[in-house]
Amino acid sequence: MSADLQEGLYTLHPIGVVRSALTSLAAAPLQGDEGGPEAWLEITVPAAHGLDGITAGDELLVLTWLHCARRDVLHVHPRGTRETPVTGVFATRSPDRPNPVGLHRVSVREVTGRKVRVAPMEAIDGTPIVDIKPVLGRLNER
Amino acid sequence: MSADLQEGLYTLHPIGVVRSALTSLAAAPLQGDEGGPEAWLEITVPAAHGLDGITAGDELLVLTWLHCARRDVLHVHPRGTRETPVTGVFATRSPDRPNPVGLHRVSVREVTGRKVRVAPMEAIDGTPIVDIKPVLGRLNER
Repeated sequence: MSADLQEGLYTLHPIGVVRSALTSLAAAPLQGDEGGPEAWLEITVPAAHGLDGITAGDELLVLTWLHCARRDVLHVHPRGTRETPVTGVFATRSPDRPNPVGLHRVSVREVTGRKVRVAPMEAIDGTPIVDIKPVLGRLNER
Repeated sequence: MSADLQEGLYTLHPIGVVRSALTSLAAAPLQGDEGGPEAWLEITVPAAHGLDGITAGDELLVLTWLHCARRDVLHVHPRGTRETPVTGVFATRSPDRPNPVGLHRVSVREVTGRKVRVAPMEAIDGTPIVDIKPVLGRLNER
């Protein structure tokens, strides 16, 4: 590929971590609106001021690093069932993919210092958070 | 922070690059639906089979690495104008943020081998692509 795809330049520095009662993938729903519980976004001290302006009632997109996912997978059965035909991972929401970035649409319930209570959140306890963005315009994303 | 936030574990491997007539940030719109042109997503050979199942007409979320962004910024004037009050980057769509992952909602116009023609795309030529996901359910995201 071209020179602008040098590896090693793109290291994510987590800005926080998901704190949730969900502690295993087996218990987690596939998507937040399929029963994702409340969770806390616990933001690091260095990144905490990036939350300024976020308040209860806001709709956010939370980007996570799905640390339990496999990165060597390009084909899956969507939703993990053999009843669906195998397809490329970029046509699915499988967590297994070359760069397992999770995308979660949540509502803010409470902001307390550098902790944000949100729902629904299907990511398990300990999942690193890499970015938070507001939902804008025709954006609505879980 | 806790032990599950070890740095260096989270390296993105670009799966492709944006090919666009937009070659400078000065010419790029702030958001795709503010005049973003067509662009090609040129996927790497190793990742190309992840596209299987994507066809013209699909609505996709493209995640990019905004390689020109600043990572040391936690506060901005939204939309770059001093007329808006300073706020935390996580409450804005500023490209400047600790992990400058761009999120773009696009429509697929054409798929040719490992190249996908999409619109609108406000990212400039050479922007690394890190993930592609389908728009699902109540998801719609640019």
